Amino acid sequence: MSAERRLSLNTMTTKRLTLREAVEAAAAAGLEAIGPWRDRVAEVGLDIASKLVHDNGLRVSSLCRGGFLTGYDEDAALVDNRRAIEEAATLGTRELVLVVGGVPDRDLAAARQRVVQRLEKLVPYAVDHGVRLALEPLHPVFCADRAVISTIGLALALAAPYPAEAVGVVVDTFHVWWDPQLAEGIAAAGEQDRISSYQVCDWLVPMAADPLVSRGMMGDGVIDFGAITAMVRAAGYDGDVEVEIFNEEVWATDPDVVIDTMKQRYRDLVAPSLTAG
Amino acid sequence: MSAERRLSLNTMTTKRLTLREAVEAAAAAGLEAIGPWRDRVAEVGLDIASKLVHDNGLRVSSLCRGGFLTGYDEDAALVDNRRAIEEAATLGTRELVLVVGGVPDRDLAAARQRVVQRLEKLVPYAVDHGVRLALEPLHPVFCADRAVISTIGLALALAAPYPAEAVGVVVDTFHVWWDPQLAEGIAAAGEQDRISSYQVCDWLVPMAADPLVSRGMMGDGVIDFGAITAMVRAAGYDGDVEVEIFNEEVWATDPDVVIDTMKQRYRDLVAPSLTAG
Repeated sequence: MSAERRLSLNTMTTKRLTLREAVEAAAAAGLEAIGPWRDRVAEVGLDIASKLVHDNGLRVSSLCRGGFLTGYDEDAALVDNRRAIEEAATLGTRELVLVVGGVPDRDLAAARQRVVQRLEKLVPYAVDHGVRLALEPLHPVFCADRAVISTIGLALALAAPYPAEAVGVVVDTFHVWWDPQLAEGIAAAGEQDRISSYQVCDWLVPMAADPLVSRGMMGDGVIDFGAITAMVRAAGYDGDVEVEIFNEEVWATDPDVVIDTMKQRYRDLVAPSLTAG
Repeated sequence: MSAERRLSLNTMTTKRLTLREAVEAAAAAGLEAIGPWRDRVAEVGLDIASKLVHDNGLRVSSLCRGGFLTGYDEDAALVDNRRAIEEAATLGTRELVLVVGGVPDRDLAAARQRVVQRLEKLVPYAVDHGVRLALEPLHPVFCADRAVISTIGLALALAAPYPAEAVGVVVDTFHVWWDPQLAEGIAAAGEQDRISSYQVCDWLVPMAADPLVSRGMMGDGVIDFGAITAMVRAAGYDGDVEVEIFNEEVWATDPDVVIDTMKQRYRDLVAPSLTAG
């Protein structure tokens, strides 16, 4: 599949659009894939969401997101994640992105252990539904409050007990660009056939006051998309490339302009390294 | 040396005090060590600073800081770092903390390579002066603008070509607490006799709008000081423990109160794990 055809709009990038609007905007822009968030799906209902996406000829590159497995209430976490697995299956995507949760107290090791235990309970359900649990390492700035998985290396270690079809990892440039072991991590993930999703957005300098919304359009920050994309390509990944941007300025911009800019930056900064070599 | 005697006041924790005031406050509080920043030293002049510290019976646990080796102007970086080495020698500390600098463009690999090249030029000068270059891994949130060394593992890799007396690493809880390879990194640093400094402060949730000043007093955040201190102790480190806090609220508090709180939290949260086992 050509690089052009692999670009996917994550619905967070055009946050103010409903799912219907995002789907129609993506299709009108010539995109072939979309990565919906669950709240946008829930607003229209799962069945309508699925119909909307497929009637517009789009693939679902991934579903964002399940996870939050580190809290004290195991039952609530399992119930919600089983529902997310069902939603992914209904939407026809194999990849359910998991943001695993932070440290509710001061015991990081115990929080990571709860991820291990709860993955064990979720994997069979995911496999039964043909869905892969895609562990997303988040930037260490989010370790306390969002994800105790901070590196591809740790995500792979947690995935190791399971087959590649059951547990994968997400490579998101914003979260992993700083990692001294990035090249090894991506290569290992590729070798194990565990790259569930490749997501791109930039690291802005200076950061926004809230790091959560400090993600920028490719080219607006310090990330070398050519270098990281080449690692992902060399690792054998041939799936969709999602653009997922949390940024107040982007959210305030006309979504059609955002999508145009996204396409242009993708063409200039990402696509050449997806096919070169 | 008892745990009590190893507590050191980094002058940044009592930012508003001059060096003389900080030295006198530390001595009055019964501390035996201080970790000065170079700007506080420069204000009174190097010779007076040295006399002040030693007349008050304090050790200098480390000098903060040299570094910023990743810019394009190599000469300026080398000149400033040679001066910092001389200052450390005059102050009678073996440990010069280096914050190595960020990414001035989009080429992280090249920035790291400049650290390698410039270390090579600085090490002989440091060794001649009996000073160790203490590489400080900073939290990855600072990779773009302050330090391209984000893990103890990378710091050790950069230190590897040199003897342990020439290049060490700093273990600062705020910067490394999230690292899935923390235990291995601290153990390896200890085995190589490369732990230059152990610095403690907490990771606050939520963060301050500027991550630079989001460091908290031990006990105010999510870090498990018992667990990390036990790793440092098991690694054989028997040097001073510096408290270095960047925090607007701490800076606005009466410095004597800050020092009292620091002593109490150190006694409760850090000291027991320095001696147990």
